[in-house]
Amino acid sequence: MITSPDNEQLKTIRKLQAKKHRERSGLFVAEGEDLVEAATWEPEILLVAGVDVEPNLLDAVSSLGSGTRVIGVYRQVWSEPGGSLSVYLRGVRDPGNVGAIIRSAHALCDGPVILGPDCADPYSPKAVRASMGSIFARPPARGEPAGTRIALERGAQPLATVEAQPPIVVCLGAEREGLPADFACDLRAGIPLRDGGPDSLNVAMAATVALYELGNRMAADA
Amino acid sequence: MITSPDNEQLKTIRKLQAKKHRERSGLFVAEGEDLVEAATWEPEILLVAGVDVEPNLLDAVSSLGSGTRVIGVYRQVWSEPGGSLSVYLRGVRDPGNVGAIIRSAHALCDGPVILGPDCADPYSPKAVRASMGSIFARPPARGEPAGTRIALERGAQPLATVEAQPPIVVCLGAEREGLPADFACDLRAGIPLRDGGPDSLNVAMAATVALYELGNRMAADA
Repeated sequence: MITSPDNEQLKTIRKLQAKKHRERSGLFVAEGEDLVEAATWEPEILLVAGVDVEPNLLDAVSSLGSGTRVIGVYRQVWSEPGGSLSVYLRGVRDPGNVGAIIRSAHALCDGPVILGPDCADPYSPKAVRASMGSIFARPPARGEPAGTRIALERGAQPLATVEAQPPIVVCLGAEREGLPADFACDLRAGIPLRDGGPDSLNVAMAATVALYELGNRMAADA
Repeated sequence: MITSPDNEQLKTIRKLQAKKHRERSGLFVAEGEDLVEAATWEPEILLVAGVDVEPNLLDAVSSLGSGTRVIGVYRQVWSEPGGSLSVYLRGVRDPGNVGAIIRSAHALCDGPVILGPDCADPYSPKAVRASMGSIFARPPARGEPAGTRIALERGAQPLATVEAQPPIVVCLGAEREGLPADFACDLRAGIPLRDGGPDSLNVAMAATVALYELGNRMAADA
């Protein structure tokens, strides 16, 4: 039973809240029973409150705060871009959105979420939590999207009318700036929004609607 | 220029972080220039950092933390249920999800978000922020949904094949529990998810996909 806050495992968990340490070590933290149960590879560290460690010491290194019952430390896994339908993100800085898109991709398409420049770390505590465990089942990828690139942009041709050959990669930029003007894509498509409504959907909503629409159409064509 | 933390307006803003005070007063807080610009009715209080109040005092009452440039206090507005397509929520406790659904409804349908029992307060700071200003353009409703109630449930008939007459109300429960077993609905429909994927989408994603699908089909029928 760990009884000292100076324990090396606790120190490691605390450090992994910082991106710098996650990058250096290639590790990340999953907090809570649901996430630890969703893990599909072995932890490097696994601490259960009241069994391996005094509960208040586990709370103290948790990003969730009090009442954390288990924390696991895992090695980061990165996929290769691929699949008949996947998502590419660029400049999506909110970790909650990145995690939510990983969950939606796991539910709706066969490819990973590919992270381009300036995205939130998918292995940050907030992104891991928002993925609801899908980070284990469908680890994210890095690099360039390969296939028919559909850039999601407001005001473009409705997504429901686009003709595209798989493999398809739905590409999304930051909510305000969108994708860079020089981003190389094969098609531009949009989600029709009501007149007088907001300029855009939340980026995770937009990604999910696009995967739903394109996934349904690919299933109908198959 | 307000120079004392004991100022009555600052005290009001601080109190409004608590649901109890929001309910008693019928007021809510919008923080930041984007939200205040999105307001479509007059503020009861409007404080600009460096103009009306010392910046550090405004930061101290902000739920966003440092760097807040403006805070407005507004009267809560509640809509009546209605529209040809709207959303009913029950047991959706995360304010970020409630706010995101208000934004999506504003973008994709003509009716409000109707809040049933056990939902997060749509006028909490986190929900207001997630609405990205849509709370002003499309104030939420309370009470019972009127029209064809489609309960969104995992494993039910695909949403894309449902035949329903407007007005349609998409009904969603909490992510795990779903709607209560005795919830009265006209139809049950689901968003098809891949085998081996997660059990469910995030509730805001599910609501947005449902509004997209049903809105598109209603537009095609019109």
